Amino acid sequence: MAIVLGSHQYGKAENRVVRIYRDTARHEIRDLNVSTSLRGNFAEAHLYGDQSRVLPTDTQKNTAFAFAKSRGIGSIESFGIALARHFVDNTEPATGSRVEVEEYAWERAIVDGREHDHTWLKSGCETRTTAVTVEGTGEDQVVHVVSGLKDLTLLKSTGSEFHDFLTDEYTTLAETHDRVLATSLVARWRYSEADVDYDAVYADVKQIVVTQFATLHSLALQQTLWHMGKAVLTAHPSIAEIQFSAPNKHHFVVDLEPFGLDNPGEVFIAADRPYGLIQATVTRDDAPDAGSAWLRSAGRA
Amino acid sequence: MAIVLGSHQYGKAENRVVRIYRDTARHEIRDLNVSTSLRGNFAEAHLYGDQSRVLPTDTQKNTAFAFAKSRGIGSIESFGIALARHFVDNTEPATGSRVEVEEYAWERAIVDGREHDHTWLKSGCETRTTAVTVEGTGEDQVVHVVSGLKDLTLLKSTGSEFHDFLTDEYTTLAETHDRVLATSLVARWRYSEADVDYDAVYADVKQIVVTQFATLHSLALQQTLWHMGKAVLTAHPSIAEIQFSAPNKHHFVVDLEPFGLDNPGEVFIAADRPYGLIQATVTRDDAPDAGSAWLRSAGRA
Amino acid sequence: MAIVLGSHQYGKAENRVVRIYRDTARHEIRDLNVSTSLRGNFAEAHLYGDQSRVLPTDTQKNTAFAFAKSRGIGSIESFGIALARHFVDNTEPATGSRVEVEEYAWERAIVDGREHDHTWLKSGCETRTTAVTVEGTGEDQVVHVVSGLKDLTLLKSTGSEFHDFLTDEYTTLAETHDRVLATSLVARWRYSEADVDYDAVYADVKQIVVTQFATLHSLALQQTLWHMGKAVLTAHPSIAEIQFSAPNKHHFVVDLEPFGLDNPGEVFIAADRPYGLIQATVTRDDAPDAGSAWLRSAGRA
Amino acid sequence: MAIVLGSHQYGKAENRVVRIYRDTARHEIRDLNVSTSLRGNFAEAHLYGDQSRVLPTDTQKNTAFAFAKSRGIGSIESFGIALARHFVDNTEPATGSRVEVEEYAWERAIVDGREHDHTWLKSGCETRTTAVTVEGTGEDQVVHVVSGLKDLTLLKSTGSEFHDFLTDEYTTLAETHDRVLATSLVARWRYSEADVDYDAVYADVKQIVVTQFATLHSLALQQTLWHMGKAVLTAHPSIAEIQFSAPNKHHFVVDLEPFGLDNPGEVFIAADRPYGLIQATVTRDDAPDAGSAWLRSAGRA
Repeated sequence: MAIVLGSHQYGKAENRVVRIYRDTARHEIRDLNVSTSLRGNFAEAHLYGDQSRVLPTDTQKNTAFAFAKSRGIGSIESFGIALARHFVDNTEPATGSRVEVEEYAWERAIVDGREHDHTWLKSGCETRTTAVTVEGTGEDQVVHVVSGLKDLTLLKSTGSEFHDFLTDEYTTLAETHDRVLATSLVARWRYSEADVDYDAVYADVKQIVVTQFATLHSLALQQTLWHMGKAVLTAHPSIAEIQFSAPNKHHFVVDLEPFGLDNPGEVFIAADRPYGLIQATVTRDDAPDAGSAWLRSAGRA
Repeated sequence: MAIVLGSHQYGKAENRVVRIYRDTARHEIRDLNVSTSLRGNFAEAHLYGDQSRVLPTDTQKNTAFAFAKSRGIGSIESFGIALARHFVDNTEPATGSRVEVEEYAWERAIVDGREHDHTWLKSGCETRTTAVTVEGTGEDQVVHVVSGLKDLTLLKSTGSEFHDFLTDEYTTLAETHDRVLATSLVARWRYSEADVDYDAVYADVKQIVVTQFATLHSLALQQTLWHMGKAVLTAHPSIAEIQFSAPNKHHFVVDLEPFGLDNPGEVFIAADRPYGLIQATVTRDDAPDAGSAWLRSAGRA
Repeated sequence: MAIVLGSHQYGKAENRVVRIYRDTARHEIRDLNVSTSLRGNFAEAHLYGDQSRVLPTDTQKNTAFAFAKSRGIGSIESFGIALARHFVDNTEPATGSRVEVEEYAWERAIVDGREHDHTWLKSGCETRTTAVTVEGTGEDQVVHVVSGLKDLTLLKSTGSEFHDFLTDEYTTLAETHDRVLATSLVARWRYSEADVDYDAVYADVKQIVVTQFATLHSLALQQTLWHMGKAVLTAHPSIAEIQFSAPNKHHFVVDLEPFGLDNPGEVFIAADRPYGLIQATVTRDDAPDAGSAWLRSAGRA
Repeated sequence: MAIVLGSHQYGKAENRVVRIYRDTARHEIRDLNVSTSLRGNFAEAHLYGDQSRVLPTDTQKNTAFAFAKSRGIGSIESFGIALARHFVDNTEPATGSRVEVEEYAWERAIVDGREHDHTWLKSGCETRTTAVTVEGTGEDQVVHVVSGLKDLTLLKSTGSEFHDFLTDEYTTLAETHDRVLATSLVARWRYSEADVDYDAVYADVKQIVVTQFATLHSLALQQTLWHMGKAVLTAHPSIAEIQFSAPNKHHFVVDLEPFGLDNPGEVFIAADRPYGLIQATVTRDDAPDAGSAWLRSAGRA
């Protein structure tokens, strides 16, 4: 029996890269949070503090900013692929690289009824995400792209029920045939193809998710997630699977009877904690192997 | 010399009141965070633990939810006024009440190109705020309304300079004739009239602020704030004064020269801390006395 | 009637100054968050964008870091006074300066039973604070010091009651003769003397506050605050007044009867929102005028 | 090709369970955040909204609170095991359960030099964690326990170097032979044995981690993590492997030369973002298979 170094990775997290395109009077903005990491054989750094095979995290930071200029940011996916490939192709000890990018949306200020050329308001809706994993070099190089969104907060004020559930001796919940359903959705989908128009797919997946949430008469948040996923996979052959994590943000009907008032689904208290948490994957039965696509760390969940 | 009880107040903070209007198939939603407090003579509770003149904070909470049903929420200002008046008019020991309300915006989901009847996305833009103070009863009753917004994040990628500033032995800052200017604006304005269409004024103040930020060629964030305030007061006679608190959210140009790249205002790092913080009030020289309008606590800043 | 510039100030917020003393093998650490601001006549910057009287916030930042070296950090109060005086004495347009400092506590790592010379764990207890205001120069210079603590989270599992309170038609709360009382205390006290041993007073005020919370059989959080304040003022003639802001962090007894279990004050759910909020000042009846001591902004609460 | 439901789980997150033991005048407190979830065959809920096999998340919540009374909280690990076993043993559709618990530390108030019987201060140091996974029933039942800590913030002001690293065309970092090293450590270790004294092991692992951080002259944060892990595994045969996630919380030496001051490692600016992020696993080469021990979601990282 011996104690050995297991999986490991290192990098620079949360580089706040803001890229302005100003080639014409109408500027463009991309506002990113970029985290890069390298995987490979860095055992000497751990065992002996020998850094000779360690490209500093500061260098990774510099590369992220330099690439924002030299390559530009077409989509966060293409930017992430370029960065991850660069690290694997040019850093001898690196056998893999994981690049995670968040993008914050800005909307143009409206002035005198028209979009302004160089002023924006930060849009507080969802954050767009991607996680790119590149492994190996040359012809054997594998590229995984998992894109997603988070903090997409949705609420419907009717069209949701919850009843006829399993009970045991700890069950006190009343059934409901009309409730508020709200969630702050996290979705992540894995592409099985390259050459995707990532911006277009993103916009469409978001629209599908919102539409399913709105139009499905929901008997369970689980059901809503399944229909979201099924609709996304039906519309996008480039997506092999999609995962959802959906907190059930409880809105409890307030009991107003002590004050002589009825409350037919009109006044709610929005609760913070605890919350239900529903997680589900919708996949194709012939989805290609995910490999390391979902691994945030080198070898583990 | 004696040790005495000074100013004091108590209440229930952060009641998360969600009100759905469902009288027709097209529902409406108001999503509030309501904090109420009472001011007056509650010395016995402090000195002796005697609660006989203390209306529990739990009762204040109940009242907020009951009023959401019985009075409805026309605007957060009118809702706050109704609540504060109720507490002062009906609670003998209370000589004043302060009610603060935040409102979170939701936008209707778009499904098949149309706004959905009962589904919304949480809009991440600014939060609308109000702080209502009611003092006294009957004909002597005074009502102060200070409304505002916070977390309105604005950025312009040109049209901002900073130079010819005062220097001393600790000054190392370089001048700039073209920079990114960004802020997360807090604005609060005090009404000097009643019978205001609060929703309409709010929308217009926000539009004025955004327009000034976009169109003023800025030599200083101070200048931008002044012009925002001046424009708001010019347009709205009902507003006596407006205060701004504006962090200068620094976006530093990244030095790409070591990598053989120029960077003419294209790649920035968005910094977290420290940040500049500019605060200014724009007022009318004949503004009526503010009284306790700005006091968050009973007797103090 | 004219629109005019009202109160205003500007500065650099949240400079994260960490000072290591390493004159001997046993190092010392002070970990600060420093916010500085200038008050005075900066109208030209607002009205015309003229910066010629504006010392940049970047210079203020530099000064904070330079002073950490050249003057050292004896206490956060003395450091704040030195900074604020510097700005007023050396910046012609500044008639006043406000410096706010937070200090984060670190405790020495214990290794082999002994305190380590140069390794610390961040202590998560309360944050120490001060707000220094300096106005005027020369013999007329006034210095206000308001020190405090925040996020001091206290809980007692018995010795707290709440009953015999005022009721109205919205009251549903049950009385209790034994409850959990918990708060996350904010306290701020104003010194009326100079030449105070700030570190010693801080430690003693904290101890007094904790002792009163523990030993007073509480009939109301209001009563607890009063006794805290009275004890502090009794022990410290240098303190003119003390303000408390105390959220009542509710711990609700969970109803376990449906599961055949009694619950005599043993199992609670800690709630997030809403929470009670009790605020009170304890003062001397001959306290000197507070002037601008409490004003966070130039002219307002 | 078909679209199918993949891995899924559901539960109630962040139940804030506070348990007071008051059998004697000297009370005890355990303050937990409990998240439970069930795994198994819940396909009908997703596909058809059929809840007949779904035990509500509300019931899971009730169970957590009831168990806090009926079973008590010996350690968070034993509490988690009891809950997870209950769900798997008594809920027919559940083939597995994941229970995650955080514990917040409280320290007794010191009053008149003695520990107080029923008053505590919240200690702000690290949070203790566990994640229990139970799969199967009867003799085949498998129990995984992964315990850990998070937010253990450590800093050493000397004894850390970084030099002789790999460079490329994007490298600008200067070498250093004496720097501040700081991190906010997350550690999670997997037990390979049952019948562990979890409280004792926790205290010892924390002490080992702190001691290694303090005493190892560090040539890299990687090296520090390796030695932490090696020492933990050497001391504790019950631990099969340990994972670390360690942000390198940069403290940059401030350049004071422009102000005529040297700065030999005395004044630093603590930076927020970006930060280095070093992650490593130290394991036994004969560690038993981890199975689902590390899986936060039903089937994925």
